[in-house]
Amino acid sequence: MYFDVVSQCVQSLKTVEKWLDKAEEFAAAKKFDPSVLINARLAPDMKNFIYQIQSACDYVKGAAAWLSGQTAPRHEDNEKTIGELRARIRKTVAYVETVKEAQYEEASRRRVSFSWAPGKVMDGKDYLLQMTIPNVFFHIAMAYAILRHNGVDVGKMDFLGPIDLVPAPAADQS
Amino acid sequence: MYFDVVSQCVQSLKTVEKWLDKAEEFAAAKKFDPSVLINARLAPDMKNFIYQIQSACDYVKGAAAWLSGQTAPRHEDNEKTIGELRARIRKTVAYVETVKEAQYEEASRRRVSFSWAPGKVMDGKDYLLQMTIPNVFFHIAMAYAILRHNGVDVGKMDFLGPIDLVPAPAADQS
Repeated sequence: MYFDVVSQCVQSLKTVEKWLDKAEEFAAAKKFDPSVLINARLAPDMKNFIYQIQSACDYVKGAAAWLSGQTAPRHEDNEKTIGELRARIRKTVAYVETVKEAQYEEASRRRVSFSWAPGKVMDGKDYLLQMTIPNVFFHIAMAYAILRHNGVDVGKMDFLGPIDLVPAPAADQS
Repeated sequence: MYFDVVSQCVQSLKTVEKWLDKAEEFAAAKKFDPSVLINARLAPDMKNFIYQIQSACDYVKGAAAWLSGQTAPRHEDNEKTIGELRARIRKTVAYVETVKEAQYEEASRRRVSFSWAPGKVMDGKDYLLQMTIPNVFFHIAMAYAILRHNGVDVGKMDFLGPIDLVPAPAADQS
């Protein structure tokens, strides 16, 4: 399930690219500089859109790396344009997709440490549940909220992304 | 892992109760009617705080029910106060906690149908990954964003809730 959850996080991260398209179209239609939008925030003491994307990317990247026993590649936080944010998402997705299902085999036995918690670790399962899932979705949702609040035409289905519905078996349809 | 993911969703839902305390304190300090806050939204064509909580609750409740082969109890969407939202969260948590780990044993083989997709179903794993996780965290995050945008003193640690850090084994500290 580690691989599946990380893959869902990747899927959710990919949906952000479509929001970026919509953000660009909105800025063009309203004739404003898109950098205003990606520097927007929901409260003065909260981080801006750029940071939310960087952070979402890093939590997905971190999950893939730590849970497969690797060290995550370093991605500098220097994006200033929508194009650069798109590139950040793509290099994150590209890295995470190099990690194959079998590499998560030992995930539940791995320990993850943090610079802000010296001498402490989280076990792999707690890290996936308490750190990866809430943080990835928090930052993706804050990015969505910033765009939505500023008038970009994103909706719930843009957030969810692809949903795998299959035909109901005949017995279920009676 | 089904039980674990649903339990994490419950954990995240419980954290909302603390935000409700902070929302009440903020309204009292600023001398405004708390109903203004829970009727707030991030955009005029987006749902309000009350709806975000109701919806988060229903996605957690639905996951526990459908993935354990039960029918979810019906909870009316009639909350109008912070106290009633707290009660909605508590009855959701109480229901979900009646479902024990063993009851999720067949979860991956269950099929979930939706009124908006007649003749179609999702399999249990897709439902957990593509529907439960993104929807639960979307609605909880939108509730957080509405409070944060309106000045309530909630922060990232209030969103994450408890993090299980344990002492690093001696070998890891070398």
